[in-house]
Amino acid sequence: MKLINVNHAFVVGLALSSTGMAMISPTYAGEILSDSTKVQVEHPNLVNTFNDVVKMREAVKKSGRFQAAFLAKQAHIDSVLTQPINVPVPKDAGGGYTHEVHKNNYRLMFDAGTLFQITQDPKYANFVKSVLLEYAKLYPTLGAHPEVKSSNPGQLFWQGLNEAVWLVHTIQAYDAVVSHLSKADRKTIEKGVLEPVALFLSEQSPQTFNKVHNHGTWATCAVGMTGYVLDKPEWVEKALYGLDKSGTGGFMRQLDELFSPNGYYNEGPYYQRYALMPFVTFAKAIENNQPERKIFEYRDNVLLKAINTTAQLSYNGLFFPINDAIKSKGIDTIELVNGIAIAYGITSETGLLDIAKQQNRVLLTGDGLKVANALDKGLQTDYQFKTQAFGDGATGDNGAFVVLRSDSSKNASVATVKATSQGLGHGHFDKLGLSYYDQGTEILTDYGAARFLNVVAKFGGRYLPENDSYAQQSIAHNTLIADETSHFNGVTKVGNQHHPKVDLFANTDQVKLVSASIDTAYQGIQLARTTALVSIPDENIDWVIDVFNAQSSTPHQYDLAFHYDGHFIESNFKYQAHTEQLKPLGTANGYQHLWLTASAQTEQSQAISQLTWLNDNGRFYTLSTVNDNNLNVLFARAGANDPNFNLREDKAFVLRVKDQAQHQFVSLLEAHGEYNPAKEYTLKSKTSIQNLSFERKDGVSLIIVELNDGRQYLIAYQQQNKQAQTFDFDGKTYKLKEAVNLFTLTKK
Amino acid sequence: MKLINVNHAFVVGLALSSTGMAMISPTYAGEILSDSTKVQVEHPNLVNTFNDVVKMREAVKKSGRFQAAFLAKQAHIDSVLTQPINVPVPKDAGGGYTHEVHKNNYRLMFDAGTLFQITQDPKYANFVKSVLLEYAKLYPTLGAHPEVKSSNPGQLFWQGLNEAVWLVHTIQAYDAVVSHLSKADRKTIEKGVLEPVALFLSEQSPQTFNKVHNHGTWATCAVGMTGYVLDKPEWVEKALYGLDKSGTGGFMRQLDELFSPNGYYNEGPYYQRYALMPFVTFAKAIENNQPERKIFEYRDNVLLKAINTTAQLSYNGLFFPINDAIKSKGIDTIELVNGIAIAYGITSETGLLDIAKQQNRVLLTGDGLKVANALDKGLQTDYQFKTQAFGDGATGDNGAFVVLRSDSSKNASVATVKATSQGLGHGHFDKLGLSYYDQGTEILTDYGAARFLNVVAKFGGRYLPENDSYAQQSIAHNTLIADETSHFNGVTKVGNQHHPKVDLFANTDQVKLVSASIDTAYQGIQLARTTALVSIPDENIDWVIDVFNAQSSTPHQYDLAFHYDGHFIESNFKYQAHTEQLKPLGTANGYQHLWLTASAQTEQSQAISQLTWLNDNGRFYTLSTVNDNNLNVLFARAGANDPNFNLREDKAFVLRVKDQAQHQFVSLLEAHGEYNPAKEYTLKSKTSIQNLSFERKDGVSLIIVELNDGRQYLIAYQQQNKQAQTFDFDGKTYKLKEAVNLFTLTKK
Repeated sequence: MKLINVNHAFVVGLALSSTGMAMISPTYAGEILSDSTKVQVEHPNLVNTFNDVVKMREAVKKSGRFQAAFLAKQAHIDSVLTQPINVPVPKDAGGGYTHEVHKNNYRLMFDAGTLFQITQDPKYANFVKSVLLEYAKLYPTLGAHPEVKSSNPGQLFWQGLNEAVWLVHTIQAYDAVVSHLSKADRKTIEKGVLEPVALFLSEQSPQTFNKVHNHGTWATCAVGMTGYVLDKPEWVEKALYGLDKSGTGGFMRQLDELFSPNGYYNEGPYYQRYALMPFVTFAKAIENNQPERKIFEYRDNVLLKAINTTAQLSYNGLFFPINDAIKSKGIDTIELVNGIAIAYGITSETGLLDIAKQQNRVLLTGDGLKVANALDKGLQTDYQFKTQAFGDGATGDNGAFVVLRSDSSKNASVATVKATSQGLGHGHFDKLGLSYYDQGTEILTDYGAARFLNVVAKFGGRYLPENDSYAQQSIAHNTLIADETSHFNGVTKVGNQHHPKVDLFANTDQVKLVSASIDTAYQGIQLARTTALVSIPDENIDWVIDVFNAQSSTPHQYDLAFHYDGHFIESNFKYQAHTEQLKPLGTANGYQHLWLTASAQTEQSQAISQLTWLNDNGRFYTLSTVNDNNLNVLFARAGANDPNFNLREDKAFVLRVKDQAQHQFVSLLEAHGEYNPAKEYTLKSKTSIQNLSFERKDGVSLIIVELNDGRQYLIAYQQQNKQAQTFDFDGKTYKLKEAVNLFTLTKK
Repeated sequence: MKLINVNHAFVVGLALSSTGMAMISPTYAGEILSDSTKVQVEHPNLVNTFNDVVKMREAVKKSGRFQAAFLAKQAHIDSVLTQPINVPVPKDAGGGYTHEVHKNNYRLMFDAGTLFQITQDPKYANFVKSVLLEYAKLYPTLGAHPEVKSSNPGQLFWQGLNEAVWLVHTIQAYDAVVSHLSKADRKTIEKGVLEPVALFLSEQSPQTFNKVHNHGTWATCAVGMTGYVLDKPEWVEKALYGLDKSGTGGFMRQLDELFSPNGYYNEGPYYQRYALMPFVTFAKAIENNQPERKIFEYRDNVLLKAINTTAQLSYNGLFFPINDAIKSKGIDTIELVNGIAIAYGITSETGLLDIAKQQNRVLLTGDGLKVANALDKGLQTDYQFKTQAFGDGATGDNGAFVVLRSDSSKNASVATVKATSQGLGHGHFDKLGLSYYDQGTEILTDYGAARFLNVVAKFGGRYLPENDSYAQQSIAHNTLIADETSHFNGVTKVGNQHHPKVDLFANTDQVKLVSASIDTAYQGIQLARTTALVSIPDENIDWVIDVFNAQSSTPHQYDLAFHYDGHFIESNFKYQAHTEQLKPLGTANGYQHLWLTASAQTEQSQAISQLTWLNDNGRFYTLSTVNDNNLNVLFARAGANDPNFNLREDKAFVLRVKDQAQHQFVSLLEAHGEYNPAKEYTLKSKTSIQNLSFERKDGVSLIIVELNDGRQYLIAYQQQNKQAQTFDFDGKTYKLKEAVNLFTLTKK
């Protein structure tokens, strides 16, 4: 094993930092810093400090996760250093050649900078220098990128967003190697490219820089960090408070508005993890440069909450795929690797190490070292997943994303109810949408985004046309659709103006419950959904109870869709499968993309209709629904009107009532049994639910569940959060001790 | 941790066995054995010997895999012992209540017997005794089972097969506890149930007992082992050589006929692992009782070869799912756990431990202990998977199942060609059927069996009607179908009379190749397929080359189906997707079960047609096919005419030519690139195949492949296994050094 030389050109001395901690402060053996970079600026001092570097230099001498990560990175970069430097004239859009080359360049510079700090081998610094000198030649020659399309144009890239990401990485690389550069080189690089890019992103792109939006966060992060390195406090101020330093724009305003008080990001988990990166990166740089700002304590620790919430918004390692989301994106994403490391660096919470262990990716940073050392020592404890209503919006009262978990473990059963606001352009039109996860897999599914990221043949790797025409529409989700139209008629601008209200949230031992409602998704129709997750392991009970009420003064067709993953097993009613010919379910608003594979008029002599499927996780799932108002059940599968085969052929049941002013869908999804063809046994493939009914008594909602072994349960919940309350049922008086209670009824 | 008392009622002494090994031989402290069980019979002495038991008693005192398995088994059985014994009057068919209870009883007795041997705790022996005394009361009252349906009737069970399996387990349990039983109890049990069941399975069921079939193997195994325990050498003789001891039936004849010389079982891997169990169990008992028979050396070690072949016939832990196969069945099946343990006990081959480690299941037997100890010591070495033609039939010349592997590792690329004989009633009609596996998953798929094992709602858990109407038909497979009819017109009896011929098999470094042909699948049509797996890691080449020729004197429609797993990405030709309505592909022979989702007349101006899909393993696959004879491409998906939603909606491309007497489909499937949405990159989503052509020169077949980066390759193979041969191509002379050679062409 080749270890690195740790004696190099730095002369270090001990000093006491403003936080009172002993710090090792570097000065430079030879050169004087350029005019624009005062001598008292320490390098590096963004995400990594010189103090971190000293520790990293020691760490790579000892075997362990950190050394392994370092050696892997070094091997990769060493192989790159043998290849010619490539800084092409910008030409291509996202995914194209020059786009990918410039992206790759900032990653390589970033890594080489880190390696220079750790190894002090000048070849790494020289690489960064050589690349930057090329950029210093190129950048002044550039105007607007030839492929500019968005409202946030770039010069190196088609989007200013990419330009900001480039600078976020590049300024860190520069910070890492600046001590090695001659005054002349520093001037060339700073004047030729670093300052111009920073000015382009700020003064010359005010609409983005001042915007309270993740593009703005990347821009302010880039410019602010450049300000620290080039010692331009004015740039830092503008990054923090907007170009006019008024606070109407800038990083602090973004911190105020883009996250809710408990750290939920308006667009949902998929974009939350993306937005997280510039927030935590710039915050870490602020903390290292101006600890007096106490940036991580700002807004009651909102950044730490945002990091934690990102982890909370996952199941079995993958983010809840609401809105436009690539479903395979999960907690091992680099953005959350950074977030978790920084959060652990601040809090030393050992539960974060559990996430870090699953991420299985070690950062070559000071915080990355802390995480690696802690994991080497086995300090991780189980991360505690929570049943929680994540309030949406700057004040947290624009609805909520509600996560109900059977317990705190990674593979607990989970129901989520999307009572959030719209989530801007990437939002889907599924107010009160339900998802359900069990034994590691998604059972009631969300389509996520219709997109094959970067696959050129699939619409250039962008969002597919079917993302608009299907994936975003209401029928593509587990929610209620009136008259085959989407919520807010599928208009984002209207959706952005409204949000549901969370009426009740209860987290008890056996039952986790949320009630939420909205009367703006459709004009003249009130929608209200109550979803309860009931888990009693000792009694083999794993249920999702779902009560969805639609109320209007005029008759409508109401559809309640349940998209599911699995193989259909049976129903307790007759259906007509469309065996010789398939036709689409409808003509518009997403309905045109579903094949109608079977239809049924349920048997009104039966109290409930039941549908059973088998998931690949080996468990059976039965949806029982109360029969009334001539309930119809439609079987559907995505893929109609899809000329390029862009859609996955996901399956759904659609419960339908026609010509009703009011209808309440009362359903219970039971998880049961096991199919184990490998060991050749099958257990309990039939549901145990015999009957299901709903009543309202004395202001209390009652769900009565009868099992075929004679057990009976009563789930009672208040309409709103109220005081303890009594009600009579079947000749007895019951008292609600919490917002929801489960009672075991005795057999008569 | 509670350990067991190893001092018990046995008096042991050292003796020299007939094989010259030191053995510990037990005698019994108190009682005289019953008349039918001579004193010189050692107990136990079937799969386990007393010598094994002594070692197991020591092993459970030390921590390790074996102790852990023992403690788990003990905990399970201890919980069972608290429950009342249940020996109900037989009533139900397979999957029903009494069926499952009687199955469970033999498992419990078997385990309790083992625990008695290890712990010497009489509670385990008393449990076996009590259950057997109940059976001794019940069995004499029984006639034919009320649900008897098959030609192999039972009394305790609806099938005699289950009765044999019952006795195979029960006689081992009895053997384990007999030393603990009073003379009276022994007489009651032996006369009341053990002898009657053995006589029922032999004298009273001659048609099964003498049959050369896996049902016969179970029966002879049960009766033969009972003969050893009850000291009835006559029963052993009948088990080995048939009721008339002529050798026309019985275990030895089954050994001669049911496996091919290299251990391939006629019905395919799924039934091979099932058939294996009675073979290895009885053979182990024979070895322990009559080592002079050298049963494991019989037929050039055919049983050891059969065990090894079962493991070879798997990919990523799952058996190749040809014929009627449940696709999730794999090498961790209990039958192969037994097989691998017994084989390791004999051979000590450390590669077998690799399989055992993946099985992750420790047997409480002498061989199980050897495996557990070896795994505790980490002695396993990589199991070597082989490129091999597994000859079919008793003499190995009834065709072959051919496995082509890119290397010997578990996750190598694998192509299989099914040039086997029919495989009796569970055989599918896919002569020369192709499957392909890559990076851990199935890429060109075999439907396997249409069955939800033991799921009552799905046709009682039996083979579904769609197994006959779809899964067994030719169109459900990756083979050639003439005139929309299945091979042998779908008649098993006809299929059983014929088999393909393997014309060429070559295993070279870069290319593995098989050519096989059959002229009886269709009257008047000769089918010949050549499949080559080409793997050159250094040049990023992972190809399956496939040349399927159909030759007749009269015109036909020829379809070549490629069933695939993945999401369709693109084609290089225009197709008409059926977006507004779907209709079945055809009307019969399985075609009625496929929806026609798109159709295309390929562009005859293009030399090749290309279809690309993306598998969930993250890799792209492109099928390139030479355009000629007005090739049509049809896109299809299973699920039509399936009123109960019994079928999986698997997808296929069907290449079709019409009104041709002769057509040769020349195709190349390229594995390429990577789709990694989690890390947000996509590499090489486009195929690199630019052109493909086929020529015959001087008796040599040539496939010419051109890549879009300018590389050109020539794959040349002989028509038959012949001597080295030269041919001219493009003005140069080439020489074939092996049956197949790959040449890199220089650019002009």
